[in-house]
Amino acid sequence: MNKSGLVSFLRHISYQLRVDSLEATTQAGSGHPTSCLSAADIVSTLFFYAMQFDPLDHTNSNNDRFILSKGHAAPLLYSVWKELGAVSEKELMTLRKFGSNLEGHPVPKFKWVDAATGSLGQGLSIGLGMALRAKKTNRSFFTYVLMGDSEVAEGSVWEAAELGAFYKLDNVIGFIDVNRLGQTTQTMEGEKLEEHAIKWKSFGWNTYSINGHSIEEIVKACDAARKANGRPTMIIAHTFKGYGLHEVQDKNGFHGKAFKKEELPHLLQELKTKFAGDVAKPDYSWKPKLPPKDNERKEKKKIVLEKPIYKIGEMIATRKAFGQALAASGKYNENIMSFDAEVKNSTYAEIFEKAFPDRFVQCFVAEQNMVGMAVGAQTRGAVPFVSTFGCFFTRAFDQLRMAAISQCPLRLVGSHAGVSIGEDGPSQMALEDIAMMRTLPNSVVLYPCDAVSAWKLVELQANHESISYLRTTRGETPVIYDATAQFKIGGCTILKESDQDKACVIAAGITLFEALKAYEVLKQEKISVSVVDLYSIKPLAEDVLKKIAKKSGTVITVEDHYAAGGIGEAVCHALANENINVECLAVRKLSGSGKPQELLHFEEIDAQAIEKMVKRLVK
Amino acid sequence: MNKSGLVSFLRHISYQLRVDSLEATTQAGSGHPTSCLSAADIVSTLFFYAMQFDPLDHTNSNNDRFILSKGHAAPLLYSVWKELGAVSEKELMTLRKFGSNLEGHPVPKFKWVDAATGSLGQGLSIGLGMALRAKKTNRSFFTYVLMGDSEVAEGSVWEAAELGAFYKLDNVIGFIDVNRLGQTTQTMEGEKLEEHAIKWKSFGWNTYSINGHSIEEIVKACDAARKANGRPTMIIAHTFKGYGLHEVQDKNGFHGKAFKKEELPHLLQELKTKFAGDVAKPDYSWKPKLPPKDNERKEKKKIVLEKPIYKIGEMIATRKAFGQALAASGKYNENIMSFDAEVKNSTYAEIFEKAFPDRFVQCFVAEQNMVGMAVGAQTRGAVPFVSTFGCFFTRAFDQLRMAAISQCPLRLVGSHAGVSIGEDGPSQMALEDIAMMRTLPNSVVLYPCDAVSAWKLVELQANHESISYLRTTRGETPVIYDATAQFKIGGCTILKESDQDKACVIAAGITLFEALKAYEVLKQEKISVSVVDLYSIKPLAEDVLKKIAKKSGTVITVEDHYAAGGIGEAVCHALANENINVECLAVRKLSGSGKPQELLHFEEIDAQAIEKMVKRLVK
Repeated sequence: MNKSGLVSFLRHISYQLRVDSLEATTQAGSGHPTSCLSAADIVSTLFFYAMQFDPLDHTNSNNDRFILSKGHAAPLLYSVWKELGAVSEKELMTLRKFGSNLEGHPVPKFKWVDAATGSLGQGLSIGLGMALRAKKTNRSFFTYVLMGDSEVAEGSVWEAAELGAFYKLDNVIGFIDVNRLGQTTQTMEGEKLEEHAIKWKSFGWNTYSINGHSIEEIVKACDAARKANGRPTMIIAHTFKGYGLHEVQDKNGFHGKAFKKEELPHLLQELKTKFAGDVAKPDYSWKPKLPPKDNERKEKKKIVLEKPIYKIGEMIATRKAFGQALAASGKYNENIMSFDAEVKNSTYAEIFEKAFPDRFVQCFVAEQNMVGMAVGAQTRGAVPFVSTFGCFFTRAFDQLRMAAISQCPLRLVGSHAGVSIGEDGPSQMALEDIAMMRTLPNSVVLYPCDAVSAWKLVELQANHESISYLRTTRGETPVIYDATAQFKIGGCTILKESDQDKACVIAAGITLFEALKAYEVLKQEKISVSVVDLYSIKPLAEDVLKKIAKKSGTVITVEDHYAAGGIGEAVCHALANENINVECLAVRKLSGSGKPQELLHFEEIDAQAIEKMVKRLVK
Repeated sequence: MNKSGLVSFLRHISYQLRVDSLEATTQAGSGHPTSCLSAADIVSTLFFYAMQFDPLDHTNSNNDRFILSKGHAAPLLYSVWKELGAVSEKELMTLRKFGSNLEGHPVPKFKWVDAATGSLGQGLSIGLGMALRAKKTNRSFFTYVLMGDSEVAEGSVWEAAELGAFYKLDNVIGFIDVNRLGQTTQTMEGEKLEEHAIKWKSFGWNTYSINGHSIEEIVKACDAARKANGRPTMIIAHTFKGYGLHEVQDKNGFHGKAFKKEELPHLLQELKTKFAGDVAKPDYSWKPKLPPKDNERKEKKKIVLEKPIYKIGEMIATRKAFGQALAASGKYNENIMSFDAEVKNSTYAEIFEKAFPDRFVQCFVAEQNMVGMAVGAQTRGAVPFVSTFGCFFTRAFDQLRMAAISQCPLRLVGSHAGVSIGEDGPSQMALEDIAMMRTLPNSVVLYPCDAVSAWKLVELQANHESISYLRTTRGETPVIYDATAQFKIGGCTILKESDQDKACVIAAGITLFEALKAYEVLKQEKISVSVVDLYSIKPLAEDVLKKIAKKSGTVITVEDHYAAGGIGEAVCHALANENINVECLAVRKLSGSGKPQELLHFEEIDAQAIEKMVKRLVK
């Protein structure tokens, strides 16, 4: 290898990336040019020296991966792809414009991006998920993650640090672009590389502290990192924000500020002067380091489970049926993986683990990193099921939000829904999970009441191609569905219906049994009600609900969830123009410890509350 | 001091705590006895040796604080208070029962608990907030935080680690109860104390690695920790889960399992044998180490701001008005503090910082710890305003959920609401924040459209005593309210109304201006609509809305937020029994980069979409 020719070439590319980043952001009228200037040398060296990938085939499963965790430096990434021929000069100038693939922060609409970034501190987890997937599928690609030095304040980064070392992911190479300055102030570490390095070392990572504007040092660190054995690597690179432009370099107050059109010519001239030796393209014939030929079978396998073996009346928790269905699914698709946050005996992911220990990932009590890793694994062909207590998904809401922006079909499973968990108290109760999951763009929210429906909804989830959430219940509930019962995303089941119905009770999960109890009591009093099992909360079977609601004109929803954003509001919205009266029973008081039935009663979402409401409305 | 008498006494207390924890959990039929057994020696030494507090006065502001971050060991805490005389034997036996103050995980209903714990990894942040508050108010109390070793996998713990060292909080003393075992498996570090210690050291903490069952070692470490200078301390204590009971000690599979009544006698006998020397109360006269007399003025000061100086028609962003109102409020109440996640020039918390630099806390890009610290500071008398981009509060949803369970009146302020932020793209847009904040028990959700309403809503927020959220807008909007306009929590303003109204448009924030534009266009076409500014989304002015909605029977809501859990659904629910037609315009498509107006148009929440909908409905 002609090292000196290479270095000149990389310096030229860095120069070009700086010029393009300035031009694109100025054209856009917004963006983060100074954050691009600090990382240009790292990025050029990664793409044009360190990484092994086919720039003509983004689908090659053996391509090394790159994640721009500091997503606000997106113009730098787009500029690289301009150099690689995938983005034209003209397209680059559409940066941040409506309809452009080149958004302010990277999204997978730009096909060389695997997962959206821009909410800081998430990229390393995504990278770990890719790297873990590489290990699990015996692929040799490396995953590179570029972080800013502000974002290492995010705890999710340290969750990733712990897991990456624990799983010995020596195929991950991270960079911290230590440009010292955050949005408004100096980072906690400032320019002290050693303060960063000592932390990563203590977490079990290889570290290299380098000058991030020295191509030679970056090349050397990259070479060493690829030879790491048993440990992931973090390269801590000293840089200057706004490198090359003396008016902004290393100065506070220029984060996220595009230069004005009238300023641009003299700034470009300054770059030209500063990097005089790099302006001309050197005589160096760059060729991509092509990865092995792609031999991954990418067809999607439809999972068709055998019928569930649960018997009507059998008592079994939906969380357990989830575990059993997941283990059954695993037989039909070797890409199914299970990620769990150290509660596998509560979520019953342990049933899958027992069947497929190699495809189970113990994520410990670190939900943010768990979700990020699952996103990464999904982009490399996994079909991830991610489980924890429903309430602890709140911990990863930002990661879920970003996963939905990435249009990543995570399968989420949250156990211990609602006050019906009982004695553990409100800290362990999922009471906002339906609202949270419903907000995610294109999400599906499912809530089985019994083992049969749980089994079949897991099957639907496994085959569904957008982010989905299954809400499971802690306690055992009786099987009410026959093994041949049909379920669909966007469906519901009318369990009780007659022409004399005075009201329609819509319930799901644990409250369905309260509705059925109320049905029986009311029946004895000659008050007939219909009962709907709303197992699909999003999408909602609007037409079916409208039809049955119109029969009596009165609907009562009942849910073990806070009123805001839950089943009641979803139903109110669906029926808003049908002249139906809707009353919503939901959790409205701060819960506490107690027996499940005591708490359902306290929150007025038990059979008695339903009876009372029906009687109030029908009289 | 009679050291040997003291040690015997503490050993006796530890024994007693173990017995009580077993009895209480067995009586409850659930709980985490093995997690209590590992930490008993630490807890007894803290309360009966290290801590300086008045066991008869929980309101004394100089009391040392204790946070049981491993909240599942709650019975241990209640057992301590039994020893201290605050809990009777009988009350202890109400553990986990409905209505008891002794919940499965600690909540402030039990008056010696400052903040709810039980979602792991949150206690240290709360402790930092208390310690920071001590420094700010020149109090000498220390804050002790007891964590489990599983929970240090949570990133929030490392956010706290960074901040604690950065702010030199040497009045925080943490413990990690290294009992090696999590819920289902060994922690990543196992029994290796050094793996814990090296991490904390690298984050700038003093560390002591000790035998957590040796009173002598705990005493020594506590003594040393109180002398620390400039650094917080983490004491890493090797313990055994289930210590003292050979069938469960150091064995997997016994997390969260209460012993059966029939097992209890032989287990208690085993403890008696194992700790034979500690069973009898030694001849030691324990006295609390009383703190200085409390001189804190605890009366609440009502904040009455001067009238805002904004002029009708002036263009000013609500986020800026927030910053100005916060700075104004700071003059009237010295307890107001501002916590911001390194975006103070975006949220405009910087205006407060400029006025009161000592009361501004730069929390860097670590939202979970920021919220936790604010909770801690609030329990010690602060009135915290917590600001970041609205979307990044998703990062701290679990902390917010726990803050609401703690009934902690945090004042949250999220900027950059909705697609109207424009070019930065979806990763930076708050589109789920209303839904998220509405789920919180007893929360208030406010959304001003102009500077005057922002100013006045901040004033309301400052005086309000439950958790509240103010949603601010990035772009400038014209002032529409007179400085004398009145606002209230649970209010709304009818801006346009006539007897000819064909529909009522309910909007808030940025969409209010779209509604007003639509109003003007429709007026020219002789279609009259009412326009409501729904500045208080929770609580909702249900009666006012019902009344105005009934006039035309047709309502259109329009919001820069996802449909789920937003304004539309809240309004649908409020009007569900009024025979009103409601159509909801909301963000329903995955957003991207673009100009604010392009994105409002794309999502069909602009004036044109409102006009179109009005025309569709009134024809």
